[in-house]
Amino acid sequence: MKDIQNQRDTRNIPIDKVGIKNLRYPITVRDRREGRQATVATINMYVDLPHQYKGTHMSRFVEMLHLLKSEVSLKNFAALLDQMKQHLDAKSAHIEIAFPYFIEKKAPISGVPGLMDYNCRITGISNCDNEVDLVSEVDVPISSVCPCSKAISAEGAHNQRGQVTLRTRFKRFIWLEDMIELVESCASCDVFSVLKRVDEKEVTERAYGNPKFVEDVVRDIASRLKEDNNITWFSVSAENFESIHNHSAYAHIMSGPVPHKGTGEKQSPHPGF
Amino acid sequence: MKDIQNQRDTRNIPIDKVGIKNLRYPITVRDRREGRQATVATINMYVDLPHQYKGTHMSRFVEMLHLLKSEVSLKNFAALLDQMKQHLDAKSAHIEIAFPYFIEKKAPISGVPGLMDYNCRITGISNCDNEVDLVSEVDVPISSVCPCSKAISAEGAHNQRGQVTLRTRFKRFIWLEDMIELVESCASCDVFSVLKRVDEKEVTERAYGNPKFVEDVVRDIASRLKEDNNITWFSVSAENFESIHNHSAYAHIMSGPVPHKGTGEKQSPHPGF
Amino acid sequence: MKDIQNQRDTRNIPIDKVGIKNLRYPITVRDRREGRQATVATINMYVDLPHQYKGTHMSRFVEMLHLLKSEVSLKNFAALLDQMKQHLDAKSAHIEIAFPYFIEKKAPISGVPGLMDYNCRITGISNCDNEVDLVSEVDVPISSVCPCSKAISAEGAHNQRGQVTLRTRFKRFIWLEDMIELVESCASCDVFSVLKRVDEKEVTERAYGNPKFVEDVVRDIASRLKEDNNITWFSVSAENFESIHNHSAYAHIMSGPVPHKGTGEKQSPHPGF
Amino acid sequence: MKDIQNQRDTRNIPIDKVGIKNLRYPITVRDRREGRQATVATINMYVDLPHQYKGTHMSRFVEMLHLLKSEVSLKNFAALLDQMKQHLDAKSAHIEIAFPYFIEKKAPISGVPGLMDYNCRITGISNCDNEVDLVSEVDVPISSVCPCSKAISAEGAHNQRGQVTLRTRFKRFIWLEDMIELVESCASCDVFSVLKRVDEKEVTERAYGNPKFVEDVVRDIASRLKEDNNITWFSVSAENFESIHNHSAYAHIMSGPVPHKGTGEKQSPHPGF
Repeated sequence: MKDIQNQRDTRNIPIDKVGIKNLRYPITVRDRREGRQATVATINMYVDLPHQYKGTHMSRFVEMLHLLKSEVSLKNFAALLDQMKQHLDAKSAHIEIAFPYFIEKKAPISGVPGLMDYNCRITGISNCDNEVDLVSEVDVPISSVCPCSKAISAEGAHNQRGQVTLRTRFKRFIWLEDMIELVESCASCDVFSVLKRVDEKEVTERAYGNPKFVEDVVRDIASRLKEDNNITWFSVSAENFESIHNHSAYAHIMSGPVPHKGTGEKQSPHPGF
Repeated sequence: MKDIQNQRDTRNIPIDKVGIKNLRYPITVRDRREGRQATVATINMYVDLPHQYKGTHMSRFVEMLHLLKSEVSLKNFAALLDQMKQHLDAKSAHIEIAFPYFIEKKAPISGVPGLMDYNCRITGISNCDNEVDLVSEVDVPISSVCPCSKAISAEGAHNQRGQVTLRTRFKRFIWLEDMIELVESCASCDVFSVLKRVDEKEVTERAYGNPKFVEDVVRDIASRLKEDNNITWFSVSAENFESIHNHSAYAHIMSGPVPHKGTGEKQSPHPGF
Repeated sequence: MKDIQNQRDTRNIPIDKVGIKNLRYPITVRDRREGRQATVATINMYVDLPHQYKGTHMSRFVEMLHLLKSEVSLKNFAALLDQMKQHLDAKSAHIEIAFPYFIEKKAPISGVPGLMDYNCRITGISNCDNEVDLVSEVDVPISSVCPCSKAISAEGAHNQRGQVTLRTRFKRFIWLEDMIELVESCASCDVFSVLKRVDEKEVTERAYGNPKFVEDVVRDIASRLKEDNNITWFSVSAENFESIHNHSAYAHIMSGPVPHKGTGEKQSPHPGF
Repeated sequence: MKDIQNQRDTRNIPIDKVGIKNLRYPITVRDRREGRQATVATINMYVDLPHQYKGTHMSRFVEMLHLLKSEVSLKNFAALLDQMKQHLDAKSAHIEIAFPYFIEKKAPISGVPGLMDYNCRITGISNCDNEVDLVSEVDVPISSVCPCSKAISAEGAHNQRGQVTLRTRFKRFIWLEDMIELVESCASCDVFSVLKRVDEKEVTERAYGNPKFVEDVVRDIASRLKEDNNITWFSVSAENFESIHNHSAYAHIMSGPVPHKGTGEKQSPHPGF
């Protein structure tokens, strides 16, 4: 049977990334409290393709995933990237894994427990020099009270759900829980899945006493991250789903240019949509 | 050239709806203020298929649309449905058109103008007895302040953006603008695209003075619709994107069972997702 | 502390459904092969609200879910609906649960195993007479080859990924796996997560030898369901993401009107979008 | 009335981007054939915020848009960015505009006209040195036939809809139409909104005679772009919605690192999701 993918290509154009995209897969993720939790991921896996080959072998990506039994953690990412390079005979490898992550969180006064969901992403690149670049990312829903509305109004203040997206590069392993707690501590108030009336009073008053613009939220998070010498790079954005508008307010701070490691990583432009 | 679609089918199973789905098309819609406005629609068009035919002629749906020059209004829906039945040689026809609709709205105090966007849908069915059933639908973003949070908290009250979806059946033509204004008048406060500081003070205080649960919003809209004898049927839901949770609060009232006109209309179950 | 929700409402308008929407939650689902599998659900839970009450108690829905430890099956749905009615002091209850479901499936020739993902939904209503109405729903990706394109072209035939959505009501418990296998057996060919070259040859030839319109797919599924006397009602649609167009071809058959059980169920109109 | 935004901020942290996100707005776009066309955009507008200010003035972004009457073209982007810097008293400005764009396209044999829709995006940055960086982007649906499947199968070949995303930087103005036509000429076959049977035969045979992997598609487009000395940078990806899988095949080539103009532009990492 012909192996078209293995044929020689004469266009002389190497491909930066080739592989599979939007594969859904059940995975287990390391969990600070329980040890591990089961969730469902959307996975992209790519390798580079040298100019002389016509195609990559797409089925090997999925086979690899099946063999790995889908145990995912920052700790085994480097090994996973290395295996991809071997199985696909490639010089660089990319994995992008997105999944909802659940944390038990008690209501602030009543202590009633509930589960909060957070969208998380872990992405990794191993380049042709075997340098590994990992990025950890969390989307954290928050509550934000508008300082301007509070200052100018006789009573009340508009507030809304917002979402903070935090991406970090780091020296040592970092828990998703730690990133999430950092973000939540910088909001007007954090968000819960169960609140009894005593709790609703508490979060209403706490948020009203702590009004913040999207600008304040990203600055407070950036301040904290700059003091943490485990963090080598970060990007933080806050988006408020304004309760007085049908569009969002948005602010974004990046700690510095994205590190370019080897030739394997060329960044994308304007990822606004 | 063979016409497979025209071949005889022997399975003896008529098809309720067959056609094209998710076609994007620029359309013009009748506008109460400007006469007409240009927008972009997503369109579904279906007919029934009698048991003896193997297939319908999909290209005719798109050809028809092109000939019509995409002028869409409730007034020409009946004619459009009739043409579909003729061109496709069918006994029943369905059209579903979804589009963003823009209305100029001035900020409440400063009078600064802006454009608000509303998702709208018009759907029509013409059955085998040539009875036409039209439904007009609007999604209206609103601001809602929680009555419980206000009552139990020393200061402030959680509030958030919500969305009301109103569907109506009616005797005489009804403007999308009228449906939208009805919904906006039943919110804690309506939502604007531009607000200067004097306006922000106004909408904050107005909303705080007018706290409403999702239950209140749907009841107030239902009350108003029940008094309007042009409305023969309605369905109204309110969804609050809670600022203290990562899920929504939801309420729904329907005025009565969906009218079944002829054999052409069999309703769908549980359309919750 | 005031209980605003418990206050008397004088508008005299009962609410059909009130509760929480779009709550994400990890659940375990009964699995024909493994016994159970862990997945992540999006959950809606509603009850009715009698005219004399101002509001429902939203926090109780999430508390209930937490106590249940999120074990979900068709078998315990009736009990869950009953508990909702008790905890919320309501006459009717609705639950809608959507989740990705994974089935191990071997490539047809090489036997290499992979995991296929299917979007599933289970919805249940318990009305004021304690009649329970359950609907089981699966989205099944399929491969479809166009019979017209094959018949008129010298070589080849356009084909594409499609999606079949099957909803059933039934007398006895029905496995999601059974619904999925029924749909897959009626496609030009089913879809796999891993295919080696010997498998790719097999599925290409199998699909090419078995061309089907969306009309054929829904008719073949309807034929099979009509012979199954465990199925009391069904709705089946097929949508082809046409490879020659940027829109879909679509067909839909419903076995008969949605059963109305008691006053609790009034159906929604035109759920086209 | 207090101006909280104008207060002095002491955290000493400048903000890279602050403004409005996901505002929907009707716009007119320059059109190679008709002169201009009306469509609906989703718009993000940001400026930088120096460390000493607490907040930006969000309402000014929307006011500006309203004054401009939403005439959008690559030609007036530089002026628009300049106005944003003036009105918001900022050193850098960003605009991101996404919209569906329609092109009349005749069926290849019958000549029947139809409208094809393409998602397009134009993004622009003006930095503190008044250097303007524009990126033009199109999503083009294509048809792709698998070369491996064709080579190993006795008859037929799996094919599917794919999507190519092309981003370019350029010296002189470039039409969206030119980018779209370049992509369509590198597919197995392009995609149409109306095809009669004679056309369906043509596109089936053309595609079957021209099988291409995602790797081939991005290489052929890259070859063409490298020969065009108006193009100073490009990024091209192809994603196939595989008809034999429930995930995508993907390939990506970037012509070189994203140009960094001044301090205003720091790129985002790993924009895989």
